[in-house]
Amino acid sequence: MTRVERLFQELKFGGLEGAFLTSKANIFYYTNYYTDPHERLVALYIDATGNRLLILPSMEKEDAKQAGWNGDLLTYKDTENPWKMLESYLDHKPSSIGIEKEQLPVSRYEQLTQIFNQTEFKDTTELFNHIRMVKDAEEYKRLKEAAELADYGVKVGVEAISEGKTELEILASIEYALKRQGVREMSFSTMVLSGHKTASPHGAPGMKKIKKGDLVLFDLGVVLNGYCSDITRTVAYQHVDKQQKEIYETVLAAQKNAIDQVKEGIEIGTIDQVARDQIKANGYGEYFTHRIGHGIGIDVHEYPSLTSHNPLKIRKGMSFTIEPGIYVPGIGGVRIEDEIFVTENGVELLTTYPKEMQIV
Amino acid sequence: MTRVERLFQELKFGGLEGAFLTSKANIFYYTNYYTDPHERLVALYIDATGNRLLILPSMEKEDAKQAGWNGDLLTYKDTENPWKMLESYLDHKPSSIGIEKEQLPVSRYEQLTQIFNQTEFKDTTELFNHIRMVKDAEEYKRLKEAAELADYGVKVGVEAISEGKTELEILASIEYALKRQGVREMSFSTMVLSGHKTASPHGAPGMKKIKKGDLVLFDLGVVLNGYCSDITRTVAYQHVDKQQKEIYETVLAAQKNAIDQVKEGIEIGTIDQVARDQIKANGYGEYFTHRIGHGIGIDVHEYPSLTSHNPLKIRKGMSFTIEPGIYVPGIGGVRIEDEIFVTENGVELLTTYPKEMQIV
Repeated sequence: MTRVERLFQELKFGGLEGAFLTSKANIFYYTNYYTDPHERLVALYIDATGNRLLILPSMEKEDAKQAGWNGDLLTYKDTENPWKMLESYLDHKPSSIGIEKEQLPVSRYEQLTQIFNQTEFKDTTELFNHIRMVKDAEEYKRLKEAAELADYGVKVGVEAISEGKTELEILASIEYALKRQGVREMSFSTMVLSGHKTASPHGAPGMKKIKKGDLVLFDLGVVLNGYCSDITRTVAYQHVDKQQKEIYETVLAAQKNAIDQVKEGIEIGTIDQVARDQIKANGYGEYFTHRIGHGIGIDVHEYPSLTSHNPLKIRKGMSFTIEPGIYVPGIGGVRIEDEIFVTENGVELLTTYPKEMQIV
Repeated sequence: MTRVERLFQELKFGGLEGAFLTSKANIFYYTNYYTDPHERLVALYIDATGNRLLILPSMEKEDAKQAGWNGDLLTYKDTENPWKMLESYLDHKPSSIGIEKEQLPVSRYEQLTQIFNQTEFKDTTELFNHIRMVKDAEEYKRLKEAAELADYGVKVGVEAISEGKTELEILASIEYALKRQGVREMSFSTMVLSGHKTASPHGAPGMKKIKKGDLVLFDLGVVLNGYCSDITRTVAYQHVDKQQKEIYETVLAAQKNAIDQVKEGIEIGTIDQVARDQIKANGYGEYFTHRIGHGIGIDVHEYPSLTSHNPLKIRKGMSFTIEPGIYVPGIGGVRIEDEIFVTENGVELLTTYPKEMQIV
């Protein structure tokens, strides 16, 4: 059974007669065609009368076919209105369809409600998320390959550190090395931060130069065959002071403990809570300012979100990050992040770059 | 007057009492803080009672202040609900507010309609677009600097071409060189395509090796100080055949002609139409499968869209691309793209890399 047919069965089970999918990730998942045509409409429409319709800009028609899409295609030029074309194409309107409310912009929703003016719209984001949450063997393989390249990226970055180099120079070395390995794009903007800048969990690399005593934080990942990776490592340059070391060891212990919690059937909240409690007990509670992790797959941040209150139970085949961090303004920050794959017997770490304190 | 105050005046003029802005680009434009916190809410709320409220994840608070935001802040942790916090914060609900329907997801819209349950929502995308469409002196400066780096990227790419190198190796050289110049990110995934792959306007670079007789197409840009650039050049490697040359000269003539049309007061559609007519007259009409260009600024694709039917009139201070292309499946493609800035006297080309046919 194809993924589209499986989705259709799930929709039917939920009392729905179709779906209109619009996120890049879901379109890729169901069609094997990944595209980001900016403001142009791309959508996958499926319904009970057998429509399996990929809506695309004309200029991407051949690319979609080459990627393996063999369902119907509705393609439009920049001067054509895809909504009108869709309306003429349809000879039946379902009584209810699923959409992605967390992603679908209001303007497109309004177009849809005009075309499907007797149709009930349901937010099936959660259904779509649940289907993609559990990865199959092929997805596991792609995630693992992407994670190996993330490891490699950190290795290149750590080796590139030297006195007076800028964050961006180190970043350039990492991405250069990865692209030569066939990486087309990073899964997010690579982060190389040093010194006090490590205290910002979402800081931006710049022309700041590395100097002795700096913590240097790498957060990076690649997209490979449509799947993302994500790793964070923090190292010290030439010298580490007492507080930096204390922060590092606190984060590392919390991260390992959190990973030890992961097994089928436990609640996601536990994973976050264990790390949070431990960091709090060490006096840094207020400086762990984000959730412990996020699902990862076609999107670098995907369902589920690993927060302390999430009651969702861990299942085999899930992949997510575990990445506690402590960020002390004016001092600096440490984050250690691995990508995890849940197996029958526990977990496999997809990222494996060493994480004991390193002074380089 | 700050940009926020100017926006508020425009809203008032349009009969609105406030706005809830959610796109990264508009938030940057009005707060000078650029952030992409993935699925986390970031919004700027302004109303007639003087609220100028930036809603952010807690961990970004310091970054926003450092970027220069000195209005109110509502920050939330991953375990908190920003919508509930917003509701308690407000002591007044406007009768009408503007939102970005082309960007705002339905789920967030539904949250908003619950909080502002007596409020009318209007799509003010066009107003926001019009404000950003005309660039000021500082924006011009940033666009120009970003464009210079795009020129440099093409130069590095052309010089990196040699027998047997892969598209991705050349791409890696370009981005490495740019990052060493202080570029943090590209404005979109850099494109280096060769041979028959140039026939796909949205193709993806890979491990394909450059060989004699290939056309090699570069499409790239950088983000610098929040502003994007975008350039395309196509060169021939060692040899060019008759049809490749004919396609090239047709695109180049059409591009130059289109640029010659640009002046204050003419309709945008004219620019596209002139190029399209010319390409058609040369027998390649069906192979020019996209619009002639797009606005550029904080977003690499922004308002306006340069299609043949757009009646919008050109104004001083607009910046956009002009990028006709001909893509013949099985043969190859050529696209030539420049970034234009509309001045009092006509146009300035922001990208200046030579565009006469080059055999390298």
